[in-house]
Amino acid sequence: MATVTPRTLSGFMELLPAPQQQMERMMEILRTTYSRYGFTPLDTPVIEASEVLLAKGGGETEKQIYRFQKGDADLSLRFDLTVPLAKYVALHYNDLAFPFRRYQIGKVYRGERAQRGRFREFYQADIDIIGDGKLDITNEAEIPSIIYQTFTSLGLTRFQIRVNNRKILNGFYAMLGLTEQSGDIMRTVDKLDKIGAGKVRTCLTEDVGLTAEQADEIMRFISITGSNRQVLDALAGYQGRHELFDQGLEELNTVTRYLSAFGVPEENFAVDLTIARGLDYYTGTVYETTLLDHPEIGSVCSGGRYDNLAAYYTERQLPGVGISIGLTRLFYVLGEQGLLNPQLPTAPADVLILPMTQDLTPAIRLATRLRSAGVRTQLYTEQKKFKAKMNYADKLGVPYVVFLGDDEIAAGQVACKDMTSGEQTKLSFEDTLSRITQGLSQRNQGKVILE
Amino acid sequence: MATVTPRTLSGFMELLPAPQQQMERMMEILRTTYSRYGFTPLDTPVIEASEVLLAKGGGETEKQIYRFQKGDADLSLRFDLTVPLAKYVALHYNDLAFPFRRYQIGKVYRGERAQRGRFREFYQADIDIIGDGKLDITNEAEIPSIIYQTFTSLGLTRFQIRVNNRKILNGFYAMLGLTEQSGDIMRTVDKLDKIGAGKVRTCLTEDVGLTAEQADEIMRFISITGSNRQVLDALAGYQGRHELFDQGLEELNTVTRYLSAFGVPEENFAVDLTIARGLDYYTGTVYETTLLDHPEIGSVCSGGRYDNLAAYYTERQLPGVGISIGLTRLFYVLGEQGLLNPQLPTAPADVLILPMTQDLTPAIRLATRLRSAGVRTQLYTEQKKFKAKMNYADKLGVPYVVFLGDDEIAAGQVACKDMTSGEQTKLSFEDTLSRITQGLSQRNQGKVILE
Repeated sequence: MATVTPRTLSGFMELLPAPQQQMERMMEILRTTYSRYGFTPLDTPVIEASEVLLAKGGGETEKQIYRFQKGDADLSLRFDLTVPLAKYVALHYNDLAFPFRRYQIGKVYRGERAQRGRFREFYQADIDIIGDGKLDITNEAEIPSIIYQTFTSLGLTRFQIRVNNRKILNGFYAMLGLTEQSGDIMRTVDKLDKIGAGKVRTCLTEDVGLTAEQADEIMRFISITGSNRQVLDALAGYQGRHELFDQGLEELNTVTRYLSAFGVPEENFAVDLTIARGLDYYTGTVYETTLLDHPEIGSVCSGGRYDNLAAYYTERQLPGVGISIGLTRLFYVLGEQGLLNPQLPTAPADVLILPMTQDLTPAIRLATRLRSAGVRTQLYTEQKKFKAKMNYADKLGVPYVVFLGDDEIAAGQVACKDMTSGEQTKLSFEDTLSRITQGLSQRNQGKVILE
Repeated sequence: MATVTPRTLSGFMELLPAPQQQMERMMEILRTTYSRYGFTPLDTPVIEASEVLLAKGGGETEKQIYRFQKGDADLSLRFDLTVPLAKYVALHYNDLAFPFRRYQIGKVYRGERAQRGRFREFYQADIDIIGDGKLDITNEAEIPSIIYQTFTSLGLTRFQIRVNNRKILNGFYAMLGLTEQSGDIMRTVDKLDKIGAGKVRTCLTEDVGLTAEQADEIMRFISITGSNRQVLDALAGYQGRHELFDQGLEELNTVTRYLSAFGVPEENFAVDLTIARGLDYYTGTVYETTLLDHPEIGSVCSGGRYDNLAAYYTERQLPGVGISIGLTRLFYVLGEQGLLNPQLPTAPADVLILPMTQDLTPAIRLATRLRSAGVRTQLYTEQKKFKAKMNYADKLGVPYVVFLGDDEIAAGQVACKDMTSGEQTKLSFEDTLSRITQGLSQRNQGKVILE
């Protein structure tokens, strides 16, 4: 009777139960952390009118989009969470209070060429703060704190939030009279990690067409490194030559000054003048986050300040700052690198009850009591041999198996086996419960990412 | 510059921040409750190959489906969570342990005619237990307990889980020699609530073509009501006439017998012989759940036992039992009926900090401390008049506003205003924190649904 071979489309992540539990854990941490900073959860449709979603039009994005007709409607699946946010804010402007702070964790769709580690359906986890007309620089200073808290809560310590300011870059290029070439220059400088300083300089003169002097100025500028203090001091040397540069430097100083009050340790933060972020619409602070031991992964959390979120939908000026985590890709890469903590419970239940009596009433009552106490409990009632039942518990990775036979019932006790240590106890319900809850809290102490 | 009028497609729910918080609360309760019963969270793609998703083919569903080409791939958006589950279980059979218990809360798509309260994109919240070859009846007995726990946790008390067994119905119709007409009969009986007993009887004779005697037998059967005990006793009178009926009655007796051990009060449960559930594939226990004070809403949680989940994908027999909540519709209807508790906090933050000093360091430190203590905190740093800042707090519905000026900083204190009572205190950080956390725990005590 089976007629169709079941399959999942390539580029679509579909996890087995144990990794799915880890993914859920990550999402839960993101929700909690984002909420802690006063962001409200948002959920927008996956499908939008093409006319609305593609208002900006053109570009690589449009080619990748999932677009189709339904009746006479021209529909598209969202390819990021920023355009839907722009639509949402413009549409519901009168009902929102500004600054409007929202987080959204949702699936987006891009019909990229299928490739290992590339996804066509993937989660983005975004936060944005949208101002009405203006938005204070302190919001930009707060972002590194949110990134720091997020990755620390996930279990990472060896990461660095790299920050720059587009006004510094644009001001600097303006000083050199290179405003028009600034896009080409930034794209070239962006390759620094990949091709090295020598080749970047060659590209600047040969491809971008700069003079040797201009190229040297740029190479000197992007080689400004050291502690945040050292970099900021070096930048102070350029002050007074261009207004935009000075403004950018002041902003960068503010962002850096409040770091410690925001709880971000110096070692997790670096001013990095090579960072520009490709997107045209960033206008102030820009952010990237890299794992120090895994530079090959690239930035795991990026974003920046933009001056006009919803220009295609409204005449209002809606500046904002936001960051995005490509959650599906991050999860995939962490798994590939073996960085997901295998010690954390991934079983669907904390306790599996094996009833040893014909009448199931006592076993069911026990399950009900455990569940009332917040313990995730499964009753196993299939007619199988004892060994098959224990195999089931093993396969799921259930931490505790509870047996309830006539002896235990008569004695008002519960037999409970710790599946990791093998230790078996026969105690009252209360004592068994406290043993289980203590054991579970220990098992759940680890972080989801293990460096 | 604005070129496109922002809009959200009709039939697609997009909530403002406050109701979205209520929706999130409901989802969180579902996740917690389902987990408590040992169900593992699952997430499958929204897009599947049409060939896979439409393996069953035909019917109303296929007309409503969102189906499109991308490159040379024929793709469809899932229209429920059951077909993707069938695919998942067939595809990953070797990696799963059976019984396999999963929950899934996800969006599904049906291009229905747009209509108030009808959605084209909506959340379903499903649980299913899938057996390999066999599945014990105790699983069917557990389902009412999960439904009871779910709705109780949401805040409902006036609801009833109505249960029947398809074997009883099919066995009964077989006794009368009406197996072939049983589909028509059940569809007619299903209208009982709407058209009344008189018209049902007329339909049975005139439309279905039964004899007056047969129609009377059926009317007598479906009018069996009373306590569960009374209904089961009355059913016992039919015993011994048909094997299938007897088996169904035994199953129903088991389901009913374990109710109290599963923690389901008698008043929230009723054996109801008029329930059949439209879907052809239910073969045993069937469930509906109605709100006693809002019968017009219809069933808010339905499901049942089926014998073969994945016949189109595998030769294996995979029986199961499951229920589904149409979450988007439920949320919509609860909102329409004014049943969502307006007392619960819906603000993005618990505390809004208004810094009253030039240097923001003390205010930022305070925010960091509050966040570390788990309090959802927002710093307000826009350059606005005091009144505008308080209006912002009001509009968001933030429960507490904290002021930090030079006086408070010098005194090592925090000024904090309870926005509901208007009461303002000036206390140490610790005392302010404990006042806030106590207040919050009180505010969060209510249930999301208010009857």
